[in-house]
Amino acid sequence: MSAESAYVHGYSAREAERLGDQAGSLAHLLHNDTHYPAGSRVLECGCGTGAQTVFLASGSPEAHFTSVDLSAESLEQAGTRLAAAGCRNVTLRQADVFDLPFDDASFDHVFVCFVLEHLADPPGALASLRRVLRPAGSITAIEGDHGSWYCHPQTAEATRAVQCLMEIQARLGGDSLIGRRLYPLLAAAGFREVRVSPRMVYVDSSRPRQVESFSKNTFIAMVEGVRHQALSLGLVDAATWDKGIADMYRATEADGTFCYCFFKGTGLR
Amino acid sequence: MSAESAYVHGYSAREAERLGDQAGSLAHLLHNDTHYPAGSRVLECGCGTGAQTVFLASGSPEAHFTSVDLSAESLEQAGTRLAAAGCRNVTLRQADVFDLPFDDASFDHVFVCFVLEHLADPPGALASLRRVLRPAGSITAIEGDHGSWYCHPQTAEATRAVQCLMEIQARLGGDSLIGRRLYPLLAAAGFREVRVSPRMVYVDSSRPRQVESFSKNTFIAMVEGVRHQALSLGLVDAATWDKGIADMYRATEADGTFCYCFFKGTGLR
Repeated sequence: MSAESAYVHGYSAREAERLGDQAGSLAHLLHNDTHYPAGSRVLECGCGTGAQTVFLASGSPEAHFTSVDLSAESLEQAGTRLAAAGCRNVTLRQADVFDLPFDDASFDHVFVCFVLEHLADPPGALASLRRVLRPAGSITAIEGDHGSWYCHPQTAEATRAVQCLMEIQARLGGDSLIGRRLYPLLAAAGFREVRVSPRMVYVDSSRPRQVESFSKNTFIAMVEGVRHQALSLGLVDAATWDKGIADMYRATEADGTFCYCFFKGTGLR
Repeated sequence: MSAESAYVHGYSAREAERLGDQAGSLAHLLHNDTHYPAGSRVLECGCGTGAQTVFLASGSPEAHFTSVDLSAESLEQAGTRLAAAGCRNVTLRQADVFDLPFDDASFDHVFVCFVLEHLADPPGALASLRRVLRPAGSITAIEGDHGSWYCHPQTAEATRAVQCLMEIQARLGGDSLIGRRLYPLLAAAGFREVRVSPRMVYVDSSRPRQVESFSKNTFIAMVEGVRHQALSLGLVDAATWDKGIADMYRATEADGTFCYCFFKGTGLR
């Protein structure tokens, strides 16, 4: 949603592929319990290239989605992706979460996924989303938490590489530890009946599809994506970085394990 | 099970209460999918004071449990606890996991919970357990992973206090990061069809019973229990320690959150 997200979630071909992989492997874990009634008006804020939108829209085929993003380029890719998936219940629109071009109370439900982590002002974004939500309407927010990552075998260099990603996101005004903060953020924004549940990804070699789709193509790929920034900013030296990445791949071998946790929160206006 | 465990899981009145609380709040999460058939012979190795035994035995009332521990004092407390709970399907016996007084293949199932973390030689223990298990019999192993802990708000001092607990356990020959290693340990021990699942505890103030039973009375109480050792060993200074503990309690307030992950593994001989 934010301009900053372009720097962390870039738009290269590999990046687009990564976001696609991420959605594919995580869709059930994140979205299996989200279904909107027929006829309901749902705002998806910060849809990016539509990686989550296809699952949302497919899971609630009788609801109507308005999916907005700040980036025209991302919206164009989202349009292509939705067309390929045969989703006809989504309207794409360019908009800023902090200045939404919608009347008060114009949506029955609001959905926001992997967006708050990039914002310098999550409470401001939640206030904006609450404004366009009708009374008794629901909000659903999903975020990761990079501090929830660990693996076996774990090394100091692998930990350092992940810390670099967290520091870069912090310098861009974001908070990659936001998953654990979802409950207090939603409660402080005035939503009621707030419920947050962890959605943990655990991967070992008995789950070879997840080794590829999550450990390698989602998480390690995301960390690898900030190599240039980490080195340019002097957060780490090249030898430490390269060993850290190699060590993360080591944890994807037959005797390795890999853990990460997403958080999903819901509340009512 | 091991002599060392006496140092980390002591036997004070508060400690006994803590283990009781732990079992009460975690029982469903850890044991809800463990049920043994009528007539089956189950070895529980390292039963301690019987905190898990009461749930195991109650959950499979027609199975017969042999629960062993190295400590006669713990076994006496386990006997009292089992009698109070009305469990009549458990035989208690003093034994060492590395020198089990049972014939080969004398059990249909083996259960081990919060034991491997304290041992210097988990592979040796698993080999010993495998010996007394009949072909096609199952093993169930449950362990925590202190490196999986995090909270909000998180501070460097709170992290340091938990690291002290991990270092003390390591000096005693244990591994408090063993949860993430269960899969490779069980696979390397020769068990087949190994499956490991994470059992994550997530606590916020919408779950007040868990704030008390898990965050305060289980996890923080366990960390607090090593204060004297941490200071004596010079792992941390008193001011840092005390702030770390205070910061952990801070995370149990209305806008705080608390996370920890157990791992449960099963396999067949």
